[in-house]
Amino acid sequence: MADPRFFSVAGPFTLNEIATLVGAEIGGGGEGRLVLRDVAPLDTAGPDQLSFLDNRKYIDAFRKCAAGAIIVMPDLVGEAPKGAALLLSKDPYRAYAKAAQAFYPDRLPPPEIAPSAVIDPSARLGEGCVVGPNVVIEANVEIGSRCRIGPNSVIAQGCKLGDDVKVGPNVTLSHCFIGSRVMLYPGARIGQDGFGFAAGPAGVLKVPQLGRVVIGDDVEIGANTTIDRGAGPDTVIGAGTMIDNLVQIGHNVTVGRGCILVSQVGISGSTHLEDYVVIGGQAGLSGHLHIGKGVKIGAQAGVMADLSAGATVVGSPAKPRGEFFRQLVTLERLTKKG
Amino acid sequence: MADPRFFSVAGPFTLNEIATLVGAEIGGGGEGRLVLRDVAPLDTAGPDQLSFLDNRKYIDAFRKCAAGAIIVMPDLVGEAPKGAALLLSKDPYRAYAKAAQAFYPDRLPPPEIAPSAVIDPSARLGEGCVVGPNVVIEANVEIGSRCRIGPNSVIAQGCKLGDDVKVGPNVTLSHCFIGSRVMLYPGARIGQDGFGFAAGPAGVLKVPQLGRVVIGDDVEIGANTTIDRGAGPDTVIGAGTMIDNLVQIGHNVTVGRGCILVSQVGISGSTHLEDYVVIGGQAGLSGHLHIGKGVKIGAQAGVMADLSAGATVVGSPAKPRGEFFRQLVTLERLTKKG
Amino acid sequence: MADPRFFSVAGPFTLNEIATLVGAEIGGGGEGRLVLRDVAPLDTAGPDQLSFLDNRKYIDAFRKCAAGAIIVMPDLVGEAPKGAALLLSKDPYRAYAKAAQAFYPDRLPPPEIAPSAVIDPSARLGEGCVVGPNVVIEANVEIGSRCRIGPNSVIAQGCKLGDDVKVGPNVTLSHCFIGSRVMLYPGARIGQDGFGFAAGPAGVLKVPQLGRVVIGDDVEIGANTTIDRGAGPDTVIGAGTMIDNLVQIGHNVTVGRGCILVSQVGISGSTHLEDYVVIGGQAGLSGHLHIGKGVKIGAQAGVMADLSAGATVVGSPAKPRGEFFRQLVTLERLTKKG
Repeated sequence: MADPRFFSVAGPFTLNEIATLVGAEIGGGGEGRLVLRDVAPLDTAGPDQLSFLDNRKYIDAFRKCAAGAIIVMPDLVGEAPKGAALLLSKDPYRAYAKAAQAFYPDRLPPPEIAPSAVIDPSARLGEGCVVGPNVVIEANVEIGSRCRIGPNSVIAQGCKLGDDVKVGPNVTLSHCFIGSRVMLYPGARIGQDGFGFAAGPAGVLKVPQLGRVVIGDDVEIGANTTIDRGAGPDTVIGAGTMIDNLVQIGHNVTVGRGCILVSQVGISGSTHLEDYVVIGGQAGLSGHLHIGKGVKIGAQAGVMADLSAGATVVGSPAKPRGEFFRQLVTLERLTKKG
Repeated sequence: MADPRFFSVAGPFTLNEIATLVGAEIGGGGEGRLVLRDVAPLDTAGPDQLSFLDNRKYIDAFRKCAAGAIIVMPDLVGEAPKGAALLLSKDPYRAYAKAAQAFYPDRLPPPEIAPSAVIDPSARLGEGCVVGPNVVIEANVEIGSRCRIGPNSVIAQGCKLGDDVKVGPNVTLSHCFIGSRVMLYPGARIGQDGFGFAAGPAGVLKVPQLGRVVIGDDVEIGANTTIDRGAGPDTVIGAGTMIDNLVQIGHNVTVGRGCILVSQVGISGSTHLEDYVVIGGQAGLSGHLHIGKGVKIGAQAGVMADLSAGATVVGSPAKPRGEFFRQLVTLERLTKKG
Repeated sequence: MADPRFFSVAGPFTLNEIATLVGAEIGGGGEGRLVLRDVAPLDTAGPDQLSFLDNRKYIDAFRKCAAGAIIVMPDLVGEAPKGAALLLSKDPYRAYAKAAQAFYPDRLPPPEIAPSAVIDPSARLGEGCVVGPNVVIEANVEIGSRCRIGPNSVIAQGCKLGDDVKVGPNVTLSHCFIGSRVMLYPGARIGQDGFGFAAGPAGVLKVPQLGRVVIGDDVEIGANTTIDRGAGPDTVIGAGTMIDNLVQIGHNVTVGRGCILVSQVGISGSTHLEDYVVIGGQAGLSGHLHIGKGVKIGAQAGVMADLSAGATVVGSPAKPRGEFFRQLVTLERLTKKG
């Protein structure tokens, strides 16, 4: 059960209610009237709690699970603990997400502007916003309705935010337009100058960075992630894209819709990602590349060339997954031969 | 055209004025009286705007460019759109930088100390400084003239900053001396304790970190970059060095003049870089190394040994560029053979 | 000598006092009455200063060292400068740490709550705390005695901190329990949502993150490091673990006691580290792994599989150290053959 110090649980819900909500079928020994009061991991869940199995690595915990009900793929029914109520779903993680959102809805606190917030008179805020202590909102900023701005964050002049945006504490925004339902985690840095200069024997000359950062709806941006504004064109993050912590996105980069960028990824300037690209942790992409739709890039990969739609690459320099592993095997074989 | 919400354009300038300013020769169908009102990228520039071609990857956009004038290398005149006014320069990016600086000069806002800034009475600030809301400036800090300190930044006791320094929002400085015309982007962390401790069976023992961070003139330090202070000697960043976002610089590191450190680079403690070293994104250097003048280290390289002046290395562990690629080819060949 | 602008030195101490304090034997030309006034690096130390040799790379500086006394391994006595006072220790770095702590004790400033701090009336603080300007402490926070909270930091509702905790400036804490004597460097982000969502053709669905971050005693967490809270289980950092700057620790990760995580390491969700694991800079670990006691992971390694206690791995994908270097040699040999 989630610590009530930090979380407050809604519900309870019957198994029937949950089944309908998440679009799953009741299986195993499940009865629709069963009352569920919370969600919990497989290894700690009790008889009035709902759990789920998504990663087969945890099948042993599933077999021994004492949860009141468990969401699971239909083909694993045979592995279920005897008599357990099951919720059969082809996508147990997604079903769990819906159930957990029902038990722990994201409740908007009552609107409040902290007295210590420094808000320029020309800034406009929609209804129902919560602005934390010491927030700084500069001239001509426009913020939609029901936005939450965490303590000690800074929104520089001219930025626009849509509705229901959640800005964590100690975030800085400048030169950006942000869609609705976007979440920015603590320490995210959006819109600062890109790394643009002309180097040479006469020294380094800064190139003014004249673009913006444009972020679509439903984007998440992780803690301490940095997204530089464009140099002339904009830096763009497409709707529904999820960006983890400590990611670097250089100037003029465009990221499509529904992309997933895991922690510590770095994307160099002017590289373009089409929709649904997935990049594993610590991977890096050179500048001025085109990465096609649905490309999958492995963790720690180093991408130095364009990739066509659907490609899956790993390694540094990145190559097709099969080729990479065949080369690994070759090298192992030749080494043993000696 | 840069969004007037965020930028205000100077000018206009005639082609003649720009040519003189950037040290380029008028070519193509250019007439000196042509009036230019802005800069813009190749693909969006219009007839009263100036653009440039630096990376030949964009030559197609150059061929179709509708800009009033385009800065380009002399040997690409033949590829220019018909009748276009050209500015011929051997270093188009540098020339563009100068022009863009003219159109978008870095204007100092009027001096102002925000009423919410917490400034110790013993701190000294030069003329014309702009100190944002909620800035904290501790005892004995000395700040030069025309410095800008962004909202919610903290300058701990004893730090010294030169003239015309620009500190972004949410920056923290301690134990450091900073030259003139330095730019520190949001979330940069300068001068905290290095990662110094004696580990062993009796537990971990912290080693007091007794040095400083000394940063030369004209340095840029990226967003969320971390530079630890020295353990006894200082950590030193030479004049004119450019450091991108999310870079880590350990204690006692010395970086020479005019170096370029791309995003997510990590340099371990007590490593010394001579002048003009260039390090690609996500590369890492072990501690206690000596890296000679002008060394080039590829993105994601892992440097575990000293490098002499002028070396170019890639790979992890890093090796000379030619060797690395020959080895790649060998492995590909042997894998195909099976 | 440490810059008095930033540091104030205690002492002086006699060589006898230091020898007793650090558990070393006086050797060379050392006399117990010798007065030492400071510590200093080998190359700058003078006759009333104490230095040390730990890394043999610096043996030349040791031979020429003019320090009043030098801490060194007993087997290096023969290399000592003529007549120098020596302190013989099997662990010179640890001995130096103790001496340096004596010269530069971590003095607690007088208790003070800055008037600009915004502290919820329900928060409780122990005796002797120092709370900097613009700090935000939310409802039901509990802070032990003698804690120092740096300017512009934010401690969200319900967090608990032990005694003698030092929180740097611009830190954000939420959903966390923190032990005693923990140090959090500037910009550290603890307790934000993990990177948890169900992706799929119907779009991305956020999974509520219902766990906490639990940090043991005597832990250090580096500047701009990010530690996400658990998704259901907690994210746990064991006592005495040292974490460098810009490290990413995903949700549900557990790190044992006495581990060392060098800068820019990334650990994906639900991976478990036993005690005394050491991870070099920029290494990455996949999710859901088990890493045994005392495992050593090289810099930039990419760990994709479980590792048993005591293993030492390098490379990406990571393999045993010996195997990795044999493969390197094989590839070099085959490349030369052509």
